Amino acid sequence: MSNDNQEQTQRRSEPLTSVQWGGDKLILLDQRLLPDAIVYLDLFTPEEVWESIHAMKVRGAPAIGIAAAYGVVLGARQYGGVDAAAWDDHVVKVSAYLATSRPTAVNLFWALDRMKGKAHELAGRGGSVADLNEALLAEANAIQAEDEEVCRRIGENALPLFRDGMGVLTHCNAGGLATAKYGTATAPMYLAQEQGIQLKVYADETRPVLQGARLTAFELQQAGIDVTLLCDNMAGMVMSKGWVQAVIVGTDRVATNGDVANKIGTYSLAVLAKAHGIPFYVACPLSTIDLNTPTGDNIPIEERPAEEVTEGFGKRTAPEGIKVYNPAFDVTPHEYVTAIITEKGIVKAPFAENLAALFQA
Amino acid sequence: MSNDNQEQTQRRSEPLTSVQWGGDKLILLDQRLLPDAIVYLDLFTPEEVWESIHAMKVRGAPAIGIAAAYGVVLGARQYGGVDAAAWDDHVVKVSAYLATSRPTAVNLFWALDRMKGKAHELAGRGGSVADLNEALLAEANAIQAEDEEVCRRIGENALPLFRDGMGVLTHCNAGGLATAKYGTATAPMYLAQEQGIQLKVYADETRPVLQGARLTAFELQQAGIDVTLLCDNMAGMVMSKGWVQAVIVGTDRVATNGDVANKIGTYSLAVLAKAHGIPFYVACPLSTIDLNTPTGDNIPIEERPAEEVTEGFGKRTAPEGIKVYNPAFDVTPHEYVTAIITEKGIVKAPFAENLAALFQA
Repeated sequence: MSNDNQEQTQRRSEPLTSVQWGGDKLILLDQRLLPDAIVYLDLFTPEEVWESIHAMKVRGAPAIGIAAAYGVVLGARQYGGVDAAAWDDHVVKVSAYLATSRPTAVNLFWALDRMKGKAHELAGRGGSVADLNEALLAEANAIQAEDEEVCRRIGENALPLFRDGMGVLTHCNAGGLATAKYGTATAPMYLAQEQGIQLKVYADETRPVLQGARLTAFELQQAGIDVTLLCDNMAGMVMSKGWVQAVIVGTDRVATNGDVANKIGTYSLAVLAKAHGIPFYVACPLSTIDLNTPTGDNIPIEERPAEEVTEGFGKRTAPEGIKVYNPAFDVTPHEYVTAIITEKGIVKAPFAENLAALFQA
Repeated sequence: MSNDNQEQTQRRSEPLTSVQWGGDKLILLDQRLLPDAIVYLDLFTPEEVWESIHAMKVRGAPAIGIAAAYGVVLGARQYGGVDAAAWDDHVVKVSAYLATSRPTAVNLFWALDRMKGKAHELAGRGGSVADLNEALLAEANAIQAEDEEVCRRIGENALPLFRDGMGVLTHCNAGGLATAKYGTATAPMYLAQEQGIQLKVYADETRPVLQGARLTAFELQQAGIDVTLLCDNMAGMVMSKGWVQAVIVGTDRVATNGDVANKIGTYSLAVLAKAHGIPFYVACPLSTIDLNTPTGDNIPIEERPAEEVTEGFGKRTAPEGIKVYNPAFDVTPHEYVTAIITEKGIVKAPFAENLAALFQA
């Protein structure tokens, strides 16, 4: 028993970090291998970062943004000249390249735009390329530090929505592994635990890639939070039994009208929550709200390879040659969203007005 | 190309048979191994039949009933005496034993009751034990032959609900593999194809055991029917795109008020279908309607081992020690059911009256 506790304590004191800077490289936790194996990858080039985002070794909208920012740093360091303007052009190219790694998560584009803007500002002021690279790294570090702070504030803002003993259902992983720390949808769970509030969390396994089983169940279990794993198709039954008082999910992009793109299956959950009178919450940083996307119809939905469905568990589980539809995301219309919880507070309908107000405050 | 066609033709001319009598044994297709391997098991004892039902080597409510009926035949043959009344008592014991193999599928109990009743009738008339065993085998054969005829009639009754070009979504496997032939939910798909009506079928993969991916997608693909495999959590999105005009599923038990027990995830689908204005059909033989079950609340829901969820496909996909909720079935309240399609016709609300009328006709 005491051995178990020691192991747990040790684990708790060394939380997994999805993305961290290693002096001359990006150190990335390969999330595809969790919970079986904890493997950190050393990435030295933008190409390696692109491939890691594309292959979902790093996933979770905020974590993708942070990884991309460090990808820009790695790319900028490859510039061999001494001209600040040429360095700036080079950063623009690296950013454009990294933007093609995945189409849906807006934090990717947000982080790249921020890095590009910073590079342009720095280059305008001049200085040695070494100094420019150092200042650009500071910007990536700032993105990471701000993400941790933002997630903590999301959790603080969300916490009043939860009471001791509530059942809370979540989908995919909008957890600490998806962000710098705390997660978005999981932030109130971690903060509740810090304050002695007991929540009973239900984690959808989240086919096809099983982020819920492999990541959310894992990180909440590691933290000592009461978590029960479900197959996605069990959520309706669990709601009908009265075991769930709130659904909370993260998101990859929110349109200005409040439509929410998130992991495939989120829309079904939102419809089920509404049918059972259960509030449906979306937790995200402001950087996930895309002012250039008026509605969910404007969000491109990535389709991923059939093999994620047909041989995702290490052996083939469907006939050869079968047709598969495998969208990575779906869009939940804003009518199904009870509230969007951000670092600046809780936003309810009418979303078009109230989301816009967040950016003016 | 011609080789491919030959292979397909060959496969089509040798359809897989889930349950068949082999002279002195029950020959069972091990459905857990499909579509990877086609393995037939020879079963000589009621214990082997019990284990095969329990472990879901045979599954699908009608196929379970047929297998259980042959299990009674195998058990009756183990009686070593010469007394008809003692033979009858022995059959009662075998039936009671086989009834404990799975709790939800009512066809299991229906088939066992029928075999028991037949044995009692035969024993009352007297005769040699060899003759009694022969007559009992004839009853099991009749159950199998009637199932094929019943499924064909279900398909004929359902067919007018479907039009050329319609998208049809199904869950789990209520297909030919679940029955003697044709299936229940799939019967209209097979008959449509015979008549040149093109349906576009969406098959939920059906976690945790993937009967949709392994069995439904497989048998429809083998038959040349247009089928697309989905993860369960994609059904809502596919409905919202307008690709589905009907949902049709099988069932393990229908209560007299029209509540329907079926594979876990069916209830979520029914709620989603209603939210999208899509009809939700249930196809089953009369033997699945349980006159002893007034409502869905009276249907026991089997919970199955956590390992089906955490390591169902050859490798572990969830953390060690994680809590899992794994109900095999859920209950869809009759309000969500558009119609129940039986061999005697289509039944709509009010179900209590209209189901009762079926048994009086």
